[in-house]
Amino acid sequence: MKLYTAPRAPNPRRVAMFMAEKGIRIDQQMVDLGAGEHRSESYLAVNPFGRVPALELDDGRILCETRAICTYLEGLHPAPNLMGEGHEERAFIEMADRRMELHLFAIAANCIRHSHPGFASLENPQFPDFGTSQGGKFRENAQWLDGVLSRQAYVAGDRFTIADITAFCAMEFARGLMKFRPGEAGLTALQAWRDRIAERPSATAGT
Amino acid sequence: MKLYTAPRAPNPRRVAMFMAEKGIRIDQQMVDLGAGEHRSESYLAVNPFGRVPALELDDGRILCETRAICTYLEGLHPAPNLMGEGHEERAFIEMADRRMELHLFAIAANCIRHSHPGFASLENPQFPDFGTSQGGKFRENAQWLDGVLSRQAYVAGDRFTIADITAFCAMEFARGLMKFRPGEAGLTALQAWRDRIAERPSATAGT
Repeated sequence: MKLYTAPRAPNPRRVAMFMAEKGIRIDQQMVDLGAGEHRSESYLAVNPFGRVPALELDDGRILCETRAICTYLEGLHPAPNLMGEGHEERAFIEMADRRMELHLFAIAANCIRHSHPGFASLENPQFPDFGTSQGGKFRENAQWLDGVLSRQAYVAGDRFTIADITAFCAMEFARGLMKFRPGEAGLTALQAWRDRIAERPSATAGT
Repeated sequence: MKLYTAPRAPNPRRVAMFMAEKGIRIDQQMVDLGAGEHRSESYLAVNPFGRVPALELDDGRILCETRAICTYLEGLHPAPNLMGEGHEERAFIEMADRRMELHLFAIAANCIRHSHPGFASLENPQFPDFGTSQGGKFRENAQWLDGVLSRQAYVAGDRFTIADITAFCAMEFARGLMKFRPGEAGLTALQAWRDRIAERPSATAGT
């Protein structure tokens, strides 16, 4: 197998952290986003949407989309379980993971891509007012998550799962490019959770 | 179990179609979106994000997020399989389903919510220029899907899956509120697929 990936990008980081938690090693091919390599003809043949990560299987098929790659890797390497045992737990972890994706990760990405000058070439045209508005929504949703984490130790309940990875990568993305610090906004449970996750050896994978 | 849902809304329609394909019946409680019932204190206690659908289990727990509800129902009613058998097929169907969500469903929703006057109260503030730009991206991505469907019978390959449901509900949403007709844009494979899916008995569920 071969993983097409890029350092410091938030979706590749999710897969890197997922792999680190399971101790999975896969040959990696770096895609230079700064040089626009993801828009090259050769990479568009790998992923027509020009996004990383993408996993090339031994039979040559290409699996894209971060969470689908995690589903595949969880099947190959079931322990430690990160996506749920049985359909009921899998469904509740999927709910938590999607909330992190839709209400934090995607909203932070919208904010950053539409308002940060460094993303003007990636998101063309940018809509800065929309970006600013998404930043406000991100803060509202972070407040909701702070409430969740004041009642339970992890995003999906009482154990570490893929939903913590998605949330952590969203928070780190917002930390770097939106200067968002939960503690400074009074979100102490969210800050304490973030600091606890940051101590895991997997937290530096993909950075 | 009890399903909180609403007629004619695209995410509830996905679950309704999924249930119809499997012959699942669940007691339903209608949430009146037009009257703002999804923003009521009682419904926000069900889903803090005020969205439908939501599934109340017999033990009182609430499962939200369309695809997570489908994961749960697939576990309870495995036949006919719509989300994949084994981790490999599940991963590839998840990839196709997410592409439909991210590149068609969410983009159509962005376009409609930010540019249609009927959504001014749901999406406040609206950013009409952003909405129009998303409409252009939707058409580009529909062209990509037309290419996929010129090579294979269904969105994820050679059989009907949840990815067809997501794509069909996105297309019907765009048909109603963006007046998008693939055939008129020269996307004949996409139009033929849409017309084939529209003939399934499940296609009118949730409308």
